[in-house]
Order: sequence, then structure tokens, then C-alpha cells
Amino acid sequence: MAEAYASRRHRLRERNTAGGPAAALISRPANVRYLTGTAPPGAVLLLGESEDDGDGEGGNGDLLVCAHPPSGRPDEGRPDETLLTKTLPDPGGDPAVTAAGIAAARGTDALAVEEHHLTVARHRALRTVAPGLRLTDLAGAVEQLRLIKDEEEIGCLRIAAEIADQALSELLESILVGRTERHLALELERRLVDHGADGPAFATSVGTGPHAGLGEHRPTDRRVEEGDFLSVGLGASYRGYRCEIGRTFVIGTSPADWQIELYDLVFAAQRAGREALVPGAACRDVDRAARQILESAGHREGLPPRIGHGVGLENDEDPQLAPSAMGKLDACVPVTVEPGVHLPGRGGVRIDDTLVVRPEADGGPELLTITTKELLAL
Amino acid sequence: MAEAYASRRHRLRERNTAGGPAAALISRPANVRYLTGTAPPGAVLLLGESEDDGDGEGGNGDLLVCAHPPSGRPDEGRPDETLLTKTLPDPGGDPAVTAAGIAAARGTDALAVEEHHLTVARHRALRTVAPGLRLTDLAGAVEQLRLIKDEEEIGCLRIAAEIADQALSELLESILVGRTERHLALELERRLVDHGADGPAFATSVGTGPHAGLGEHRPTDRRVEEGDFLSVGLGASYRGYRCEIGRTFVIGTSPADWQIELYDLVFAAQRAGREALVPGAACRDVDRAARQILESAGHREGLPPRIGHGVGLENDEDPQLAPSAMGKLDACVPVTVEPGVHLPGRGGVRIDDTLVVRPEADGGPELLTITTKELLAL
Repeated sequence: MAEAYASRRHRLRERNTAGGPAAALISRPANVRYLTGTAPPGAVLLLGESEDDGDGEGGNGDLLVCAHPPSGRPDEGRPDETLLTKTLPDPGGDPAVTAAGIAAARGTDALAVEEHHLTVARHRALRTVAPGLRLTDLAGAVEQLRLIKDEEEIGCLRIAAEIADQALSELLESILVGRTERHLALELERRLVDHGADGPAFATSVGTGPHAGLGEHRPTDRRVEEGDFLSVGLGASYRGYRCEIGRTFVIGTSPADWQIELYDLVFAAQRAGREALVPGAACRDVDRAARQILESAGHREGLPPRIGHGVGLENDEDPQLAPSAMGKLDACVPVTVEPGVHLPGRGGVRIDDTLVVRPEADGGPELLTITTKELLAL
Repeated sequence: MAEAYASRRHRLRERNTAGGPAAALISRPANVRYLTGTAPPGAVLLLGESEDDGDGEGGNGDLLVCAHPPSGRPDEGRPDETLLTKTLPDPGGDPAVTAAGIAAARGTDALAVEEHHLTVARHRALRTVAPGLRLTDLAGAVEQLRLIKDEEEIGCLRIAAEIADQALSELLESILVGRTERHLALELERRLVDHGADGPAFATSVGTGPHAGLGEHRPTDRRVEEGDFLSVGLGASYRGYRCEIGRTFVIGTSPADWQIELYDLVFAAQRAGREALVPGAACRDVDRAARQILESAGHREGLPPRIGHGVGLENDEDPQLAPSAMGKLDACVPVTVEPGVHLPGRGGVRIDDTLVVRPEADGGPELLTITTKELLAL
């Protein structure tokens, strides 16, 4: 794994050298983790101008600057052993300011920073500590590197998906009627942890009856009743990688006709979205494939603003599968496909999978979240 | 409650007019919530130059600009009904940019922004949409207003403390030996929700045996054993207000001598900290009062960097009770007092209360977290 991190830093340095300063200050936690294996709170990566470690701070190599030492906990990740680390004596200090000072002391001319992450105040503090250092914008360079996942990353996503599938399937074996949305959510989160997740990827969504079919529904004390739609959305985090799944069920022995009809419609839309996942496909076309099925059936209100999004070290990454999205899909890009229809006062259906885009010759997209999408009456 | 929010906005406007632009853009979520009653994700408050609502956007009054409409959920809070709200048609837009555009359209000259919150990129976007608008730094003006809590806020903190106390006392009635740190933490969090919390204020800390006595210990699969110290740190959020409590117990019938000695020491340090909470006291002196008891007993390593901190709409607010803190306490400022000693490989003790500073004539600090601090053998 250490080679992977060093290799990513190398790729970033090469990309930088092509268009601007080679040296960079990475501060967004997911980006720090991507490049080093860990992201203790507040830690920054000083990407050096060369591979040369020299003598630690005096060299030109990479340096992880932390306010607190890396804990090595599984959820926080372990730092790449080849990477030099510096922990500030005062945990109240700003590692970014320290890193800028080190860059200046090394004689670095220019430093690219993440202007979409650093606050105006912190940026000013960097300029104050290193007035001779020209600060430029790294923009989304690391996010762009993160788009295409390697097999190790996909392996973590597979495990996260298995964990979420297991937690969900165990819940479905238990009694649901009479239980509150909150309790079901807490139960799911407990099972995620039991099955080896670092933790839930995000606040578990459980909505029953009129709450079903919403994209993000914070669980309430409403109890599951016979005849309800029940929608569940959950995600597991495993070694920092986050996978999500969403399913909708009917409570009781016989779904109503309107429920079957709505479920079949959302299922068809979600399938169309999945089948549109092909390397080279335009992201907006994947959204269109699913959305048009829902719109053709007369649903224009209550549709989600986007049909899906990328996942990885963050719950919500590029690419966006949305009507206004630019860009195309590549192989080895993991995305969600999560259309839904919510009818105020009645409820609705939402079906969410995480898949990895694969070449058609390899059998099309790899489905990570394998819990059945057949409409289950529970 | 609506008068309270309007009154806070008025106070902020008055404070601003004294030293700079009257108009301001508030973007930090806790600050938005403090001034409006709610903070949907991404929402910003445009604090107008006057109280005059005029005709909505055309007037000079206050405007809450949201990417998503306020949900009204208890954990998110409800907006002040007297406040005008604008929801962007595109949830992907930046409410701060929209707000700056509105300010410019109103003919506002200068707008104070929260430079410790806005990123460089967002700040640049504001300048792009409103090039004639002079942007200044609001700095911590809202945080300063938030320091002293009114009785309604203290009421919420009292309830949050009761909820945390209840969750903890129920856990103590159950069997602890053999259970993992993780399960105990999840159990506590479930009980917080059962007793009416919006949710846990932060990730519950449970450490047993060698993990006990650490300030923040992410629960592991280690099981509670006879003879262990068991340290628990949890917090409840109620209507956005966050209270915390920490206690340490011994598992089994008879604590060892070293355990009793260490517990008595930390108890004495914590009591000294609590007793130093007097209006007008220097924050660093409160830290000193607790810290010197621990240092005199020979503990210099493994002490926390600060003895306590403020609480309110955020888990961790000013004032800081730390060696380098400037500033003094005022009445109606809620703080934690949470010294601890951790002995690597052996464990330790941490005792944490939330109290409200009160005049000595009123009986000294008001203790919110009333779970006994007597050493319990469980």
C-alpha cells in the first residue's frame, strides 16, 4: 500500500509540474488520506518539489504535518511508512501554516493550495508566515486523480457493500411492524459496526408510510404499519471507502395496486440508469435514461435533482449523474444509481445501488450492492 | 423565540455599524442558526443594513438564503417566522453568491463576511458576482455574541444534560463486564435518542482498561473486564444545544489502591476547576487550578492540553480553559471542566462536567450534569 501512496503523490507532482508549481499543500481530509493513507484531524500534506527526502524538513520531499499524531485506528487509516511526519508541539497550531513556513524555508518559490478548502483567514495566515511564497490554486487536481479507482480501492468498496448488504438482510429477518424509524436506523448502524464497518458512511435513512421514497429522511418516531412502503438508505465505511444501498419494501402480505405500479416504474428507471453505465457515456445521459422513464409516467415533481453520484473516500464525489453534468464515465469509476418518486402524503419508492463502471466486454457494470431489488412484502 | 432571533440580529447590526459595514453575510452554520433559528445545509444569512424589510429582496432587511428549504425538523431547528427566506431553484447553487448578488442589487457598499469560514474559492465567487461590493472581515463577531447564553439557551442545555445523565444512569444499571466498548457506545447513543435528544452531540467515547482516561477514545472491540477502569464520555444535542458528561468507574467489587489514589487526585483537580468558575476569573486560572493539582502529584505527561471549553450550539466553543487562554469568564457562560490522567498501558481517569458560570452570590456555578462523581464499583 505504501507504494500506492507514493505513486499517487508522484502522479500529482508530475501533473503539477506540467502546469504550475510542483510543490503543493493538500488540506482537504479525503485528499490527504488518498495521498498518504491517513488524515488525522487538521493534518496537511506538503507535497515537495521532488521525491528527494533529503534530511527531513531540509529536503525537498513530501511531509505530513499533523496537529495530533496519527492514531493508526482503522477508521482513520495508517500513514504510508515511507512518508515523513511532523506533529506540532501545540495541538492548537495550524499545520497548514507550519507547512507553508517549511516550504518557504526550503526556498520553494510557489505553492499550490486548495482554494476550495482553505478559508480566507487561513490563506492569509499562510501569506503572513511565508510572504515570499507565491500561492496558486491547485483546484480539484486531487479529486480528479481520485475519480478512477484502483483494484485495492474497489476491493474496499466491495467489502463496504457486503457489510451494508448483510446489515440490511439481517434487519429484514426481524419483525418490523410497530418499530420506529429511529430504532430501525440505530439497529442497522449497530449491525454495520458488528460486521466490520468503520462505521456508518452517513446518517441512516429510514422512512415509513408517507416518509417512504424520500432521498434523505432523518428517522422519526413514526412506527411501521401494515400497508406502508418502507424505504431504507444506508452506507458502510470500510477503510475510509464508502458504499451505499437503498431499498424499498412493502409491509404486510399484499401490496396495493398503486404500490406495485409505482415500484415497477422506479425499478425500470433504475435499471435503465444501470444499463447506461458504459465507459465513454455522458454523465447527463445516465441521468436522462432513468429520469425520462419517471417523467414519461407523469412524475415531474418529487424527483431527485440528480440520479446518482460517485463514491469513494467521500460519500459524495464526482462524477455527478445529473442533467447539467459535464464529463463522461470511465471504467473503474464507482457510482450510485438512485432514482425515486415521492408522493407527498402517500410515500414512495427509492432504489439505490452502488456499481463500478466496467467495459461492456467485461460484462457491463459491476454491481456491488447485491440485495435483491424484487419488491418484498415483509 | 422569534423576538430572540430578531433581537440577536439587531445586536449584531448595531455592533457592526459601530465599526464597519452594517450589512453582513453569515455562513458558519452555528452562527446562522443562532441568528435565525435554523441552518439547513449551505444556508446563509444576509444581514441587511436596516430592520426594514421593504419588499422582500428589494428591501434592506434580513434574508435567509437556502439551497434546500428549511425542513422544520427538531434537529435542524425552525426559522424565525418574521424572517424572509429565499430558496434557490437549483440546489447546486451557492447561497452565499446569491446573497452577495442581492446585496449588490440593493446598492449595498460593503459587506462583512466570515473569513474564518468562507473558502478562498467562494470568496472569489462573491467578488465575481458583485465586483462593486467591498468585502470586509466580520471575524468572530457572532461567536462573541454567542458566548453569554440567555435563559432559553441554558434551558436547552439543562435538558441536554438531563438526557445524557439519564442515558448514562440506565447503562450503569446494566451488565457491563464482557461487553465491548463499541456496543456500550451504541447503547448509550440509542438511549440518548430514546430520551429525546436530537442525537449524540459527538461520537461517544468508551474506553476500558488501558483505554480508560483518554480524552477522546474511539470505541474498539475490547471487552470490559473485572478490575478495569471504564471511562465514558458522551453528549446530547437538544434543539441544537450540546452538553457533555464524562465519568470513570471501576469494574468489580474492590478498586486497587492505585486506582483509588488516581481517582481521588483527578476528582480533586476537577473540583478545583469547578470551584474556580467565578465571573471575572481568568480562563487560564481555571485551567491552572485543576492542572496544578495533577502536576504537583507528578503527572506532567498524559495531561490534556486544556482543562475545558465552552459549549452551546457547537460542542467546542469559546471560552477555552487553557494555559494560554486570554479572556475572563462571565456569568451565564456554560463550560466543561474535564481534567484527566492517562497512564499508557494501565488506563486512567477522566471526569467531565458541564456547568454554567453564575455569580457567587447566587451559589456559584450551576452544575448541569448531576450524575454522581463518587467512584462507583460496578
